[in-house]
Amino acid sequence: MTTAPDGALHVLPDGTLELVSHAVRRQRIVHSTDLFATGNRTLADAIGDRRPLVIYTPAVERWYGDRLHRYLTEYCPHGFDAMLLDRAEHSKTLSAVEMICKRAAEAGLRRTSPMVAIGGGICTDLVGLAAAVFRRGVPHLKVPTTLIGLVDAGIGTKNAVNHAGRKSLVGTFYPPEMTILDPAFIRSLPRRHVANGMAEVAKLATVTDAYLFEVLERSGATLVRTQLGQPQADAIAVIERAVHGMLDELAGNLYEHVYQRAMDFGHTFSPYFETASRHTVLHGEAVAMDIALSAALAAEIGILAPSDRDRILGCLRALGLESTWPGTDCHALRDSLTAVREHRDGALNLCLPVGIGAHTFIGQHDFDLTILKRAHAWLQPGQLVARRPTADVRALS
Amino acid sequence: MTTAPDGALHVLPDGTLELVSHAVRRQRIVHSTDLFATGNRTLADAIGDRRPLVIYTPAVERWYGDRLHRYLTEYCPHGFDAMLLDRAEHSKTLSAVEMICKRAAEAGLRRTSPMVAIGGGICTDLVGLAAAVFRRGVPHLKVPTTLIGLVDAGIGTKNAVNHAGRKSLVGTFYPPEMTILDPAFIRSLPRRHVANGMAEVAKLATVTDAYLFEVLERSGATLVRTQLGQPQADAIAVIERAVHGMLDELAGNLYEHVYQRAMDFGHTFSPYFETASRHTVLHGEAVAMDIALSAALAAEIGILAPSDRDRILGCLRALGLESTWPGTDCHALRDSLTAVREHRDGALNLCLPVGIGAHTFIGQHDFDLTILKRAHAWLQPGQLVARRPTADVRALS
Repeated sequence: MTTAPDGALHVLPDGTLELVSHAVRRQRIVHSTDLFATGNRTLADAIGDRRPLVIYTPAVERWYGDRLHRYLTEYCPHGFDAMLLDRAEHSKTLSAVEMICKRAAEAGLRRTSPMVAIGGGICTDLVGLAAAVFRRGVPHLKVPTTLIGLVDAGIGTKNAVNHAGRKSLVGTFYPPEMTILDPAFIRSLPRRHVANGMAEVAKLATVTDAYLFEVLERSGATLVRTQLGQPQADAIAVIERAVHGMLDELAGNLYEHVYQRAMDFGHTFSPYFETASRHTVLHGEAVAMDIALSAALAAEIGILAPSDRDRILGCLRALGLESTWPGTDCHALRDSLTAVREHRDGALNLCLPVGIGAHTFIGQHDFDLTILKRAHAWLQPGQLVARRPTADVRALS
Repeated sequence: MTTAPDGALHVLPDGTLELVSHAVRRQRIVHSTDLFATGNRTLADAIGDRRPLVIYTPAVERWYGDRLHRYLTEYCPHGFDAMLLDRAEHSKTLSAVEMICKRAAEAGLRRTSPMVAIGGGICTDLVGLAAAVFRRGVPHLKVPTTLIGLVDAGIGTKNAVNHAGRKSLVGTFYPPEMTILDPAFIRSLPRRHVANGMAEVAKLATVTDAYLFEVLERSGATLVRTQLGQPQADAIAVIERAVHGMLDELAGNLYEHVYQRAMDFGHTFSPYFETASRHTVLHGEAVAMDIALSAALAAEIGILAPSDRDRILGCLRALGLESTWPGTDCHALRDSLTAVREHRDGALNLCLPVGIGAHTFIGQHDFDLTILKRAHAWLQPGQLVARRPTADVRALS
């Protein structure tokens, strides 16, 4: 993040003083591959002549630990400090953020020196928040090593941790100076986590990008199986379109002052699946369940053709993603929406697909439980048969 | 804080994506008096038709609790939530910030609804940080009730808490929507806390405002004794010039990307006095000790006339402020500068007076302990006699 600071003090006609501040922040997203190879200067150039604090996960240590340390030793002219997030720290809590700040203090990290996050979405979120508050803000770089990080958590401008039993209650908008995208990391990812990441791609495709949706329909199964190795052209298309599409959506509403956000698609019911399953359902898996339920709901109230609903469900299946969680309790699911509404300033602003690559927003009011139950019924095994939608839009819009 | 969000996505010639964000924040500083009186709409208008979470201190509860609750009940159309910071929370720690976030979650505080801080600098700092991170930022209003809050902590754009044994390690730049300045609160302030706040005024006056310094020399003792009641013209001058002067200094360097800051005067040695005394020395009292030591140091190295040094020491004395802490250990004091250097990105950038209302910055290198000891010796009782400065500027510049 580069900040061009600016401020001005005005005296208004009634004597009120007004202090206007102006912050410009630039985040670069660069592509590279085999990041820790000798001769690859992408990360070295991003660090420059600063002494970084590099924060990484046990998985990164296991797969890349030696190469990473050799690389940093060779390319950091003033040395570096390193912090391996242990298992206890590797959860989205404030105490993990505090541990990072403590380590940064011990390392004597300067205000212009970067924290470098190398890991999945949890790691990049923790570091993003720590960087935002350590000495009132130091730069940070994100190197996502999971697919969900590459296409979602690692490229956004925001971060958050859970607090007081609530998901993402505490966080900031604080873009990294740079995000470095290296698809080679996907090769070391368990297949379940590849599918998990593809759910965020499916989210974007379903409501904003019909072409990307077709790529997923055609090659999704192969892409997951080969860890984005084959077909190569489709692997590139998936990452580039997903990244560009998400950033395009973000750019218009960086600080979320508009509460109708296409990027919230898949993120209305998903907190329930994650929380109710005690996080045995991964974030992307929960997003897939939300996509499935949203599609069923949209068809149920008559704004999505049943054939498009079935394409959406089929696409998720091809990616190896479940369309619901067996333990779902529709009453509890409905009640969970209160927290979502609070986060969107009082209204649900539910994003629903109205076709492949198209969406609308509905719902100021509470859900009719019957509709939710009917929609959910579509997602039970064996229920995926054609049925005429019985619309009751009034209860939702 | 009003944020006019803006973002744009660019594709650079080398294919790099650049996401540029643009945040404009406006903070208003308004004057009012007898804030909780029926008919005074200042605070009511600032809250508007939002449901606020009002956070206040035990002192506010004791002096103004009933009037505050009556006022809020009458003037908040959608009701309000209140949180009394108990003693345990009333310290600058992250756990206090977490408690505020938890309370805000329980209250269902919306993203456009404000937290309102009513209290001293600790309270407004805690609420500032909580507002910055709760749901990635909600608005907040500051109502400082101490002199140090009125002229310093409550009008700035930044906040911080102590962490990992280090002062102000964690915080943000996050201006309030509005700060409401009501000098009537000073009437309920113990005299020690009036003097404490005057130290921040003396800081500003010494290095940037010779006129304000003369007001302090002339009327400082009376102003402290009468809790800024008399002389009235000077009381108004003190608050208005202090507030305007500080905001003017801030405006040019809102995000502290310039590390030579006149507003850091009095804040280089003061963390030592606060910490070493286990906070029996108040913040402003420590600032006064720093001002005294800085003046002695400036005279010692020959950049400040001894007569001006003596005026500075005399002014502090008139305000009832001690010029040093009896337990001072010059070795430890010198060692404490390491932490200050880290916070200023590696260089001390020491602000020293070169006359009344004028300053310079010196010091990339370590202090010569001898000079520090000689300067400190001036501050012992009975040492305030004329002595020819023996300059050794090289060791400092």
